Amino acid sequence: MDLALRRGFFFPSSEIYGGTAGLYDYGHLGTLLKHHFEENWRKFFLGLDQNFVEIDTCTIMPQAVFEGSGHLKSFNDPLTQCISCHRRHKADLLLEEKGIEAEGMTAQEMGDALSSNSVKCPVCGGELSPVHWFNMMFELGLGAADKGELERAYLRPETAQGCYVSFRRLFEVLRNQIPLGLAIIGRAYRNEISPRQGFYRLRELNQAELQIFFDPDSLHSHPDFSSVEHKKLRILSTADREAGEVREIPLKEVDIPEFYGYYMARVQDFYLSILQVPPHLFRFRELSENERAFYNKIHWDMEIYTESLGGFKEAGGIHYRTDHDLSGHQKGSGKKLEVNIQGKKFTPHVLELSFGVDRNLLMLMDTAYTQEEERVLLKFPALLAPYTVAVFPLVSKDGLVEVSKDIYTEISSTFNAFFDEKGSIGKRYRRQDEIGTPFCITIDYDTLEDSTVTLRDRDTMEQERVHRDSLVKTLREKIHK
Amino acid sequence: MDLALRRGFFFPSSEIYGGTAGLYDYGHLGTLLKHHFEENWRKFFLGLDQNFVEIDTCTIMPQAVFEGSGHLKSFNDPLTQCISCHRRHKADLLLEEKGIEAEGMTAQEMGDALSSNSVKCPVCGGELSPVHWFNMMFELGLGAADKGELERAYLRPETAQGCYVSFRRLFEVLRNQIPLGLAIIGRAYRNEISPRQGFYRLRELNQAELQIFFDPDSLHSHPDFSSVEHKKLRILSTADREAGEVREIPLKEVDIPEFYGYYMARVQDFYLSILQVPPHLFRFRELSENERAFYNKIHWDMEIYTESLGGFKEAGGIHYRTDHDLSGHQKGSGKKLEVNIQGKKFTPHVLELSFGVDRNLLMLMDTAYTQEEERVLLKFPALLAPYTVAVFPLVSKDGLVEVSKDIYTEISSTFNAFFDEKGSIGKRYRRQDEIGTPFCITIDYDTLEDSTVTLRDRDTMEQERVHRDSLVKTLREKIHK
Repeated sequence: MDLALRRGFFFPSSEIYGGTAGLYDYGHLGTLLKHHFEENWRKFFLGLDQNFVEIDTCTIMPQAVFEGSGHLKSFNDPLTQCISCHRRHKADLLLEEKGIEAEGMTAQEMGDALSSNSVKCPVCGGELSPVHWFNMMFELGLGAADKGELERAYLRPETAQGCYVSFRRLFEVLRNQIPLGLAIIGRAYRNEISPRQGFYRLRELNQAELQIFFDPDSLHSHPDFSSVEHKKLRILSTADREAGEVREIPLKEVDIPEFYGYYMARVQDFYLSILQVPPHLFRFRELSENERAFYNKIHWDMEIYTESLGGFKEAGGIHYRTDHDLSGHQKGSGKKLEVNIQGKKFTPHVLELSFGVDRNLLMLMDTAYTQEEERVLLKFPALLAPYTVAVFPLVSKDGLVEVSKDIYTEISSTFNAFFDEKGSIGKRYRRQDEIGTPFCITIDYDTLEDSTVTLRDRDTMEQERVHRDSLVKTLREKIHK
Repeated sequence: MDLALRRGFFFPSSEIYGGTAGLYDYGHLGTLLKHHFEENWRKFFLGLDQNFVEIDTCTIMPQAVFEGSGHLKSFNDPLTQCISCHRRHKADLLLEEKGIEAEGMTAQEMGDALSSNSVKCPVCGGELSPVHWFNMMFELGLGAADKGELERAYLRPETAQGCYVSFRRLFEVLRNQIPLGLAIIGRAYRNEISPRQGFYRLRELNQAELQIFFDPDSLHSHPDFSSVEHKKLRILSTADREAGEVREIPLKEVDIPEFYGYYMARVQDFYLSILQVPPHLFRFRELSENERAFYNKIHWDMEIYTESLGGFKEAGGIHYRTDHDLSGHQKGSGKKLEVNIQGKKFTPHVLELSFGVDRNLLMLMDTAYTQEEERVLLKFPALLAPYTVAVFPLVSKDGLVEVSKDIYTEISSTFNAFFDEKGSIGKRYRRQDEIGTPFCITIDYDTLEDSTVTLRDRDTMEQERVHRDSLVKTLREKIHK
């Protein structure tokens, strides 16, 4: 967190006004890291099928959408308030902190459990009010033209709804093909009662979600299944929980439908190959019927072991949502969302791949953070690092700056490059290590003679001489190796 | 608009629920176009100075920010309501439609002008209520932890505020250098009373804005001014308005400070060289003291002639905002926003380059739209087109599909490519013309013999044979020529 603040990855939003719980801003390095995560996500998941595309829909959606989706009725958190200091708390969280499982309780039951266990306000020790449900969506009034009153609308609590209400239009535009994948990378908003987990639980968050609309009769097959069936997945099923041991078993031996399993394998590829999360820090965790939303028939979370959060934490989930969403919106809007594929009529089912962008970045920073005797470094994969390469003139005289700037300009068109001429070379290396720049190039007096530069590797600190004409090629090879 | 809907550029948001005025969604082609616009914007403007960076801040900001910025007090529109049908209208718009200039009037004066000119409700003909000011920000309640009541917050009406409140942090992180440029590409929200201009006036909009913080003593110089001083700018100053003629004169002859002029020249470069807007469709228009916000000391808008909107329309603006913003937030937050550069203390001034992303895309589509005898095409520059190249097998047999898919996969790693095997070649060309794909590649029987393909140009419809091994190189040359 200190590093994130000091170097400009992220920091409390509207900081000069004291900040607000659950709101964080990205500085320049965080923004670059976020871009790189999103670009890689897009390339990987949209590359799985030519009929997977990205759309970008409004974050404000009218009330009717959330009547159709069910959020108005059920997107609630249990709220209790201190009758002395008036602070608001999540009742289930207070109970869980006392070791009482609140999952599945009614508001009344939570209120009873709070008082029978003498739970008090954690801040001032005051008595707590009865528990009631608090809807976590942010409500807005639109100054609508065609109505006298302000029209009620809400900020979307998940990007997914934008895909469901656009399904009909995109299905038609993309010439009536199933499966159809609609992805949105963007903001979602949740009015958390009392967010206390810093960057992990945000009121304004970024999601990358892909909704795959498919024929439910195809649930048990996938045309490319054979390419992944031997891949070993790292799983913790509900049955495995007693033992608490992650098992690593071939996909085809996991008891899940092929269509679901195929995407599970791909999601693991994304984490292990693209994001380069060390395998022992990754697992799929199956949610029990109690834990998952009633409309999710199958639900496994991706979890990353995150030191600073004290264990394995949810980075996203794969949700088989059946026809819950399209049927709800069909009923709510009165518009047919059924499809007709060569005479076969059905309401597509949805498989959702959902990623919390912010928490993934937090986890990537956490796993990349390394403390060595003389330095701190972020071991980001080269494709994710804010800057890929830094360029330094050894000294600021004798024409070294000019040559360095030339080289910087040359490689900038291909890589995210950073130029730095301030301080000792050692200090400049440390500054780059700390923000995860995988390569540094130093221009010295030899460069003036023979056009070679020093190329230094972040992790090994090894240095080699490379001719400036082959810098782009060499860097490209190292990045993709 | 028909093309935009039919092909998935953009469409009314939450369409199946009837849509909402001022809210539009981007389909897959619109999303690609938007990405390409934003990537080019970022590359061009952040490339102007190594101390220009992008940040990504929350769209929800606490009330105190808008007390500091002045928006709570003054971000208002004059509202009148029909006393019969209760529809809400913008009073100044109703007056302007009657040829009455409302600029600078008080609410009382507008109300008087409406009744003395017998202006009625444009929908039902009913009487209109007195005019009052309506704040155009969307208000939210945060379920704050440390207060009993919901904490008031607002959706930002411009991305700029995110930069102003983050200035102090970024200035420090970026090692105290001035000028400092902070860019945000993202959403802004305006509760327009009665948006009637479709995609041009949105309640949820995308902006690309760069705030340049600089020493006011440097207003009359810029280190790179000599590289742009001979560039001819297309301008319509307030003095030119009588004649109504755009003048094309060298920057150094325009009566504006060098620092401002330098960025004006760069903005024009962006429009003419990167976006490739035909010069006669572009101009800078100076705003008079009456028209511009009181804190903008110099204000020129970029305007694009947009057929579908009936003339030259605002695409963005260059605003010299002085120290208005930092001084306001310094007062509001009680935090020092003054800087100290080598012993010299001052509050930086702000030059803002502001672009409305959505309206720029609308304008680009408008200027690209071309109707020829046998086809409709969008003449997008290659760097902006949703797809750069489409790949077609001539027929779906004899192994042509397999070879085509190989070629598609090869070039996909470099370009946004699209694969299509459905319908006649003629129809496939038309479909790509219509969405602006600059190049099509057809794989035919000759390809099987000699590995050459047909490369077809969108605008000239000329075809040439190219060896598949040199496709990437040939395409790259054509794109950058």
